[in-house]
Amino acid sequence: MKLIKGFQDNPNSNYQLNVINLMKHAVRNYSRQEIVSRNLDGTLFRYTYSDAYKRMQRLANSLETIGIKVGDRIGVIAWNTYQHYEIYFGLPGIGAVMVSLNLKLAPQDLAYVINHSGIKYIIVDEDLIQVAESVVPLCKGLLGYIIITKKPLNNVKTILKPNYSYEDLLREALPNYEWPNLDENSAYAACYTTGTTGKPKGIYYSHRNVYLQAMMFAAHFSMSVNDNVFQLVPMFHVIGWSKPQAATYVGAKLIFSGKWNLNDLEELTNIFVQEKVTASGAVPAVFMAMLEFIRKMKQKPDLTGTRLICGGSEPPIALMRGFWDETGAEIIHSYGSTELMAITTLNTFKPWLEKELSEEELWNLKKKQGIIVSGLDVKIVNKDGKELPHDGKSSGEILIKGPWIAEKYFDAPETKDNFTERGYFRTGDAGCLDSEGYLKITDRLKDVIKSGGEWISSIDMENSLMSHPSVLEAAVVGISHPKWDERPLALVVLREEYKSTTKEEIREHLAKLFAKWQIPEDIIFESKIPRTSVGKLDKKLLRIEYRDYYTNYK
Amino acid sequence: MKLIKGFQDNPNSNYQLNVINLMKHAVRNYSRQEIVSRNLDGTLFRYTYSDAYKRMQRLANSLETIGIKVGDRIGVIAWNTYQHYEIYFGLPGIGAVMVSLNLKLAPQDLAYVINHSGIKYIIVDEDLIQVAESVVPLCKGLLGYIIITKKPLNNVKTILKPNYSYEDLLREALPNYEWPNLDENSAYAACYTTGTTGKPKGIYYSHRNVYLQAMMFAAHFSMSVNDNVFQLVPMFHVIGWSKPQAATYVGAKLIFSGKWNLNDLEELTNIFVQEKVTASGAVPAVFMAMLEFIRKMKQKPDLTGTRLICGGSEPPIALMRGFWDETGAEIIHSYGSTELMAITTLNTFKPWLEKELSEEELWNLKKKQGIIVSGLDVKIVNKDGKELPHDGKSSGEILIKGPWIAEKYFDAPETKDNFTERGYFRTGDAGCLDSEGYLKITDRLKDVIKSGGEWISSIDMENSLMSHPSVLEAAVVGISHPKWDERPLALVVLREEYKSTTKEEIREHLAKLFAKWQIPEDIIFESKIPRTSVGKLDKKLLRIEYRDYYTNYK
Repeated sequence: MKLIKGFQDNPNSNYQLNVINLMKHAVRNYSRQEIVSRNLDGTLFRYTYSDAYKRMQRLANSLETIGIKVGDRIGVIAWNTYQHYEIYFGLPGIGAVMVSLNLKLAPQDLAYVINHSGIKYIIVDEDLIQVAESVVPLCKGLLGYIIITKKPLNNVKTILKPNYSYEDLLREALPNYEWPNLDENSAYAACYTTGTTGKPKGIYYSHRNVYLQAMMFAAHFSMSVNDNVFQLVPMFHVIGWSKPQAATYVGAKLIFSGKWNLNDLEELTNIFVQEKVTASGAVPAVFMAMLEFIRKMKQKPDLTGTRLICGGSEPPIALMRGFWDETGAEIIHSYGSTELMAITTLNTFKPWLEKELSEEELWNLKKKQGIIVSGLDVKIVNKDGKELPHDGKSSGEILIKGPWIAEKYFDAPETKDNFTERGYFRTGDAGCLDSEGYLKITDRLKDVIKSGGEWISSIDMENSLMSHPSVLEAAVVGISHPKWDERPLALVVLREEYKSTTKEEIREHLAKLFAKWQIPEDIIFESKIPRTSVGKLDKKLLRIEYRDYYTNYK
Repeated sequence: MKLIKGFQDNPNSNYQLNVINLMKHAVRNYSRQEIVSRNLDGTLFRYTYSDAYKRMQRLANSLETIGIKVGDRIGVIAWNTYQHYEIYFGLPGIGAVMVSLNLKLAPQDLAYVINHSGIKYIIVDEDLIQVAESVVPLCKGLLGYIIITKKPLNNVKTILKPNYSYEDLLREALPNYEWPNLDENSAYAACYTTGTTGKPKGIYYSHRNVYLQAMMFAAHFSMSVNDNVFQLVPMFHVIGWSKPQAATYVGAKLIFSGKWNLNDLEELTNIFVQEKVTASGAVPAVFMAMLEFIRKMKQKPDLTGTRLICGGSEPPIALMRGFWDETGAEIIHSYGSTELMAITTLNTFKPWLEKELSEEELWNLKKKQGIIVSGLDVKIVNKDGKELPHDGKSSGEILIKGPWIAEKYFDAPETKDNFTERGYFRTGDAGCLDSEGYLKITDRLKDVIKSGGEWISSIDMENSLMSHPSVLEAAVVGISHPKWDERPLALVVLREEYKSTTKEEIREHLAKLFAKWQIPEDIIFESKIPRTSVGKLDKKLLRIEYRDYYTNYK
């Protein structure tokens, strides 16, 4: 679309929306605000924004001393720690690019990311050295490693060479750093998505992208200096869903979760209470496990007023209601992806809907992906690219464009069909928008089940399954079928206490919402459903695993 | 400062932060939100964001039909009405520039602004036709006039020719408009400042400036769809202090005050109650008059939770306490100017200060100008330009730079000393920053009173005078003095019920805070203190009026 220039008198187009300006001018105001970080041993480290900023300056100086230059790509393999937060600003602040490495990737995928993005150095937590070591033979371009450890370096056994100690570098660095006036369109970070088929695809976020999303998030989420923000989402996922940056913008207290998994739910729940967490975020699988844990607690944690962003996939109503009933915390669904830079929608209510809708209708509204945030351009289009009305019914592919939405993948010309000529990202999701601006995903386009020429929504069916009291988890995939082209197959994990539930009971439950022809031929009870490295149902794997299921099914 | 370009992979640098994107993507979400506008007869007009957006599109079409093109400057002389709101988006949306004309300016100043900015057309409220007519003989470049009236045009008597009816144009226009992809650095509006000596000076705000300030304001003020925002500040003052834009960004209800003056306080106060106003803004003189009015009301309005932005000059503690005690509304001081685009600071508290400070200390903190909002660069410098520490004591000139801070006046090379080489605006205010980031103005540099080589702060003295229970208004100016170079002279308006207060009582009150040598030789009781067109104490006038007072004073 042609750019039209109006009357030009740009007195301040010179001022750059880079994270240096975001951070240093916020630190001026909130220097005493606390930052908490969970150590490997479960103890909590505490310091302030002012302390963090001092160390960011030392980090910037030491990175330059090592030889890192403007434009260099630097990999980071780290848990959610205060050092990771320092890297979030100190590294892109000098003009280098922070390439967030997903520590759950297989070595060959990780190596692909490192080679494709041209990473020169890797900053790695001592606890994650093995992840870095696994790629060394596959990556010839790596010049060195910075290890985050409190130990003397010679006590750290590793093949990573040459290596530096993060803490030694900071200690030896000059205290003050003169930040460059960095063009806002310079890359701040890169994240690679592995959500779909093929090689990981890289998205580079500019400083401007990050700055604007932080402002938007703070505004639309009403985040303020009174918030205590618990960073549970791994910081290598889409730059931590922008929470560290938005929190910094408004001077909120930040709490970093350290290394954790679902065995640490007691500790994490305690942190919610002790640190008076008012905002956090995670994928449904995490909140589901946390809710199960809380249900078993004698004294439930009082989380009244806490807002939990739930993204990655759609949270079941049962989960949202459960949290509300047990703790008083509100789950707010947000839709996004690596290409959309996480926060693309927020499911918040409007005063008139709170008046007009019944409690039940409001819960149903909460199931939607929420309002596409102000400033983003969205289109629902049919197969011919024709725009569909925002009537809450017309479903088509969701196209999005906006100040932080990817318009291409880095150095991957073969992927250009993922974007339209006018720069919209094709989400690959089918959905509809209602007249209030709420988006509802009806299906991943590739997850749609096409049975005898008709579509069946796997997501609707999963939600219906999840609403059955016996069901803990559910996945529905389309499996090729000799007669109907494709047929749905349901995989269900039953709750411990309802193991006697039968297939017939589940079918009857589905029959309340679905036509007879839509109900799966079979329901398989599993003990676990595989998930991807980012916690989504791994339907790709399920489709492969059960490829021939209906072919042989009598 | 040299611009450093980092790794460049700008997938979406193409997406423009213009008010078209601000508005149309917000209207998608908040189409049903209400907009209320007070008519000339005091009745209230009501419609929705959706209705407004439809009319904005018609406005855009009709402006193009008349012949208005990208880059044209168009003057607007209007009260705070829904049509003015439509113009705020529909006019800059086509790429033209909205030149806000201060209807309180003298004809020769107004004509200067019109000629200097090259205005082609003027959009004018029927009620303000005389203002436009007064400049016609002085402005040769004007091509036509659009009159906002509900009457048939031939019932409107005016020498403004050729003229169009705003309502007729909208009625006849095509309903849909294809907005241009407007470069964010295009000028959105121009405001001329008359605050200082010399000719009015023009500041052009780009779309980007407006968009970013709206986001910042929404974030730092926690403005949301639940807010009911009462637009009291004239919309020709620094684009209405960005409230219409920030409110639109988050979908808040907007209430436009129409034409009003201090005789309408009853009506305005009623609107606060009836429309459940949660946010508004005005200069201290307005809130002072409103508080006086409320004090006399038998049943005080309950404004618990309402936040009132008070700018233009510093609100006295007595005013802030009075509002709090009588209504429950909180006055939040914001410092700004035309060059700073209004919202530069916000005096909000931080949780740790609320814990640590006594109630009295918090009230004192509220007197400060507040926190320079995140993202702005501020320096306090001494006469040699050396930066002073943020210790709450070191006072010097305040320099500010940021994404919406002017770096020059339009077409006025003789004014370049108002800006530093590195693009900071010299505010002309002296002040200090404390370690928490709160700014305190100690004086207008030109209002400082230099007595025998020492400085006396006129603002501190005015505040002290205002804290005396008998005093309604006070101004302190420096008057040339045969012996001491300059000496302070105090002008005081006593409250009706305290008319018997003596000069000696006032002097004794001042003596509690000021050294003997600082106390004014004389205190003059006046019935009124002159104010400028924007409501500030008109010290320029006072200095002229009392020029020889101390020369002849025995």
